[in-house]
Amino acid sequence: MNFDRPLILASKSPRRQQLLSEAGFKFAVKSVEVDENYPIDLEPKKVAKYLAEKKAMASQHELTNEFLIAADTVVIVDNQLLGKPITHHDAKRMLRIMSGRTHLVMTGVAIASKSRLVSFDDTTKVTFKVLTDDEIDHYINEYKPFDKAGAYGIQEWIGMIGIDKIEGSFFNVVGLPVHKVYEHLDIMNATV
Amino acid sequence: MNFDRPLILASKSPRRQQLLSEAGFKFAVKSVEVDENYPIDLEPKKVAKYLAEKKAMASQHELTNEFLIAADTVVIVDNQLLGKPITHHDAKRMLRIMSGRTHLVMTGVAIASKSRLVSFDDTTKVTFKVLTDDEIDHYINEYKPFDKAGAYGIQEWIGMIGIDKIEGSFFNVVGLPVHKVYEHLDIMNATV
Repeated sequence: MNFDRPLILASKSPRRQQLLSEAGFKFAVKSVEVDENYPIDLEPKKVAKYLAEKKAMASQHELTNEFLIAADTVVIVDNQLLGKPITHHDAKRMLRIMSGRTHLVMTGVAIASKSRLVSFDDTTKVTFKVLTDDEIDHYINEYKPFDKAGAYGIQEWIGMIGIDKIEGSFFNVVGLPVHKVYEHLDIMNATV
Repeated sequence: MNFDRPLILASKSPRRQQLLSEAGFKFAVKSVEVDENYPIDLEPKKVAKYLAEKKAMASQHELTNEFLIAADTVVIVDNQLLGKPITHHDAKRMLRIMSGRTHLVMTGVAIASKSRLVSFDDTTKVTFKVLTDDEIDHYINEYKPFDKAGAYGIQEWIGMIGIDKIEGSFFNVVGLPVHKVYEHLDIMNATV
C-alpha cells in the first residue's frame, strides 16, 4: 500500500506492534494512558470498540497529519466479559470456564486523524478442548498470562495444544484484526 | 506432558520445527527423501495423509525406541490439489484462483514407532478476500513462496492482510495440527 502519512500505534502491546510491523507498516509507538472504565449498562459486545475509541480520542487533539491506531481486546463467555487475571487463582478460574467450550474474542479498533475517527471491531470464535488442571497450572506457571484478557495467548503453548478450532481471524485473537486495519487505512488514505 | 521416548521430526520445514518446539517438545530433525507421487485415482482429500504415511514408513525400519513424526500439507480448491508453484506465473495463477474464495488446507500426520503407525489429518477452511494483482505480485516478489503448497504462508504478509477468516486450526495451516499431534502422542505414550 502506498501510505505516506505518518502512522502511530497507541498500544504498549508487543504483540500488536509485531503484527502491524509484519503487515508491512512503518509506525511510531505511543503509550496512551486512559482508565479502562465503561458505562455499566454497555453490552459486553460493544466494550472493545468503546475502549478503542476512548483511547484514540484521548490523543486525537495532539495529531497534526498523522493517523493514530488504538485497539482493545476482550474475551466474552456467556455474554460475560473476562478481563485480565490478577492472580494464579484468577487465571485458573478463567481457563476452567473456557475449558471444553467456545468463547468470543473481540478486538475493537479506532483509527483517528486530526479531524476524523473511524472505528470497527472483529469477532473470532475460539473453542478450547477440555483442559486438565495440570495443563492449566503448567501454562500459568510458565507463561504468566497476567497481561492478557481471558488469561491466555493463542500464539503460546496453550493455544497450540489446547485449541481445537477457531472461526474468524487468528490475528484478531492475537490482538489486532490486521486485515481490517489494512482495509480501513487503505480507504482513509484514499479519501483524506 | 511427561514424554520419555526420543522424538524425531521427519521434516525439513522450519515452520513445522518451530511449531513442535513451541508446543514444548524436544526432538531431533531427520530429513527423509521420498518421491511425493500418489495413486492417480486417490481422492484429493486423502493425499496429505497418504504422503505423511509414506514418509513415516520410509524410515520406520530404522527406529529403535523413538517416535517419528512425518507430515504433509496440501491445498484443495474445488476438489483440485494446488501443489508448490514453480514460477512467479504459477504462484500468481494459484493466488488468483484462491482470491475471494474459500479453500481447504489439509495436513496429514503419521506417527510411527518401531512396531506401530498412527495417522490422522486435519482440515481448515481458509477464505481470502479479493486480492488485487498488485498485492499478489508484491507478495510473490517479496516472499518467494515457492516452497509452499498453494503459494502462500498464512503467517506471512498476505495471510495477515488478505485472509478474512479461517475455520479450524490456524497451526494446521502453518503446517502442523499441533493440538492433534499432542493428543496422539499423549495416547501413544500411555499405551506403548
